[in-house]
Amino acid sequence: MLSAMGETSVPLAPEIESQVREGFALHGFMRHLGATLTLLRPGFCEVRVPFSEALTQHHGYFHAGVSAAIADTACGCAAYTLMSPGSSLLSVEYKINLLAPARGTELIARARVVRSGKTLKVCAADVFGFEGAETLCATTLSTIMEIPGRPDRA
Amino acid sequence: MLSAMGETSVPLAPEIESQVREGFALHGFMRHLGATLTLLRPGFCEVRVPFSEALTQHHGYFHAGVSAAIADTACGCAAYTLMSPGSSLLSVEYKINLLAPARGTELIARARVVRSGKTLKVCAADVFGFEGAETLCATTLSTIMEIPGRPDRA
Amino acid sequence: MLSAMGETSVPLAPEIESQVREGFALHGFMRHLGATLTLLRPGFCEVRVPFSEALTQHHGYFHAGVSAAIADTACGCAAYTLMSPGSSLLSVEYKINLLAPARGTELIARARVVRSGKTLKVCAADVFGFEGAETLCATTLSTIMEIPGRPDRA
Amino acid sequence: MLSAMGETSVPLAPEIESQVREGFALHGFMRHLGATLTLLRPGFCEVRVPFSEALTQHHGYFHAGVSAAIADTACGCAAYTLMSPGSSLLSVEYKINLLAPARGTELIARARVVRSGKTLKVCAADVFGFEGAETLCATTLSTIMEIPGRPDRA
Repeated sequence: MLSAMGETSVPLAPEIESQVREGFALHGFMRHLGATLTLLRPGFCEVRVPFSEALTQHHGYFHAGVSAAIADTACGCAAYTLMSPGSSLLSVEYKINLLAPARGTELIARARVVRSGKTLKVCAADVFGFEGAETLCATTLSTIMEIPGRPDRA
Repeated sequence: MLSAMGETSVPLAPEIESQVREGFALHGFMRHLGATLTLLRPGFCEVRVPFSEALTQHHGYFHAGVSAAIADTACGCAAYTLMSPGSSLLSVEYKINLLAPARGTELIARARVVRSGKTLKVCAADVFGFEGAETLCATTLSTIMEIPGRPDRA
Repeated sequence: MLSAMGETSVPLAPEIESQVREGFALHGFMRHLGATLTLLRPGFCEVRVPFSEALTQHHGYFHAGVSAAIADTACGCAAYTLMSPGSSLLSVEYKINLLAPARGTELIARARVVRSGKTLKVCAADVFGFEGAETLCATTLSTIMEIPGRPDRA
Repeated sequence: MLSAMGETSVPLAPEIESQVREGFALHGFMRHLGATLTLLRPGFCEVRVPFSEALTQHHGYFHAGVSAAIADTACGCAAYTLMSPGSSLLSVEYKINLLAPARGTELIARARVVRSGKTLKVCAADVFGFEGAETLCATTLSTIMEIPGRPDRA
């Protein structure tokens, strides 16, 4: 129902793709989770993380914090693809609903930009546990601010 | 302004304290973050995590996912202190506002139960970066469900 | 991207349809807004409200409170279609992102159930301003609790 | 626990007070609800609305939409008191947790600015039902954007 701006088959300009991937690589926390950026389109991003004991909550499933972290990062990368050159991004806030146990061999976050304003970008992400098939386990809604004239890195 | 139920000087019953601490110890993800449960009172919980490169975002500060994960866990533990015996808890949803860069040598989440219903417990948490002094860097509002007759572990 | 359960062409059982419509009619506030329930399907609901000076904010558009109120009510009615007989519903929480000025001759909220659990139902709604064409002006994510054995009215 | 910036005894500069009150008066929807702005301090605002059949949900209590609308407006007015001259404000998003039935002769929203950034102001509000005594019935967290160089009215 949300007006989708993402997951088109349109490929991303190669220089933007490499900028977003470089940005992702700077997140020590994504490495610590074992997460990888697996798909990038204009206004769309997918992040995946394989299961590990290190990522569990008390029932042995993925911790909600893992779902939230990859959803938030996927939203940031989806917004990044629509950002003006020379800007940088800041997560303002997000909300996550946990819908089912995050179980499986892999956790997959897919984010898309719902509205791309000049200053604020609103993104939605879904998180799926993969165990033979995908099960929706969380959904998020987030706000990201674009800060002009302040590139992400020197 | 929120009607506070937490951070009283009233100590927690020792058997509840050890149950909550055992529950916390079951979170592989908290270990992976290097987080420790540093304070527990009826309806209140504090969790701390020291800085490490492994927990950073692209500017080198704590990743928002770390703030969210320890805030969510602290809320869960705060709710746990008010739970009926033999129940277990499930995070339903939360919202986080990121207020300032999460920088410093340590990140501190303090959570308290705002309303303790029979089925739903609503909690608020604040997250502070510590760098000589504490700076508020995030605030959350979360909903936790109590599931009766299903203890957390066998 | 969200796994949709709603807006199917499957019609709703007539006795459920009339129960939900009776429930809607009990909301004095919906009457006060001039809102009508315009479409009901299993897991889906649409609510509309025509423009009036009485519903404006300081720029003369629909007040965000109107968007939120019809989105929340549409979510409740969508959840109601999937509720067990003899239960009643309670709004637990929601989050709304305001995406564009809510302007036009009419405001339209469309809600669908994202996940229908036994106790909790999670719903998403979009709100559109109609001015010749529809413009997405808000999106929400909400949690609704089903309370068994307590019918909505005597 | 939230670092409070509001509800001090410091009075507001009279010209700011009258600007905020004029802004409030422009909300046709507040009039339609019968809401009044009852207290204004730097970073703090209180809004009250008396009970009426027109504001009810299906159990005869205040509709959640009324709680949300006055909380959102109180947040906006609290943010307004800290705004730069010549700017205007826009609600970006908010989240509300409904904690108890909103019953009583009056509904009271108290909002304060949690963080006042140059572009974004984050506010928290609590809503109380008054029935001899105050009962906390909702709590919100919201984000408001300041738009420089665009006064609210000509």
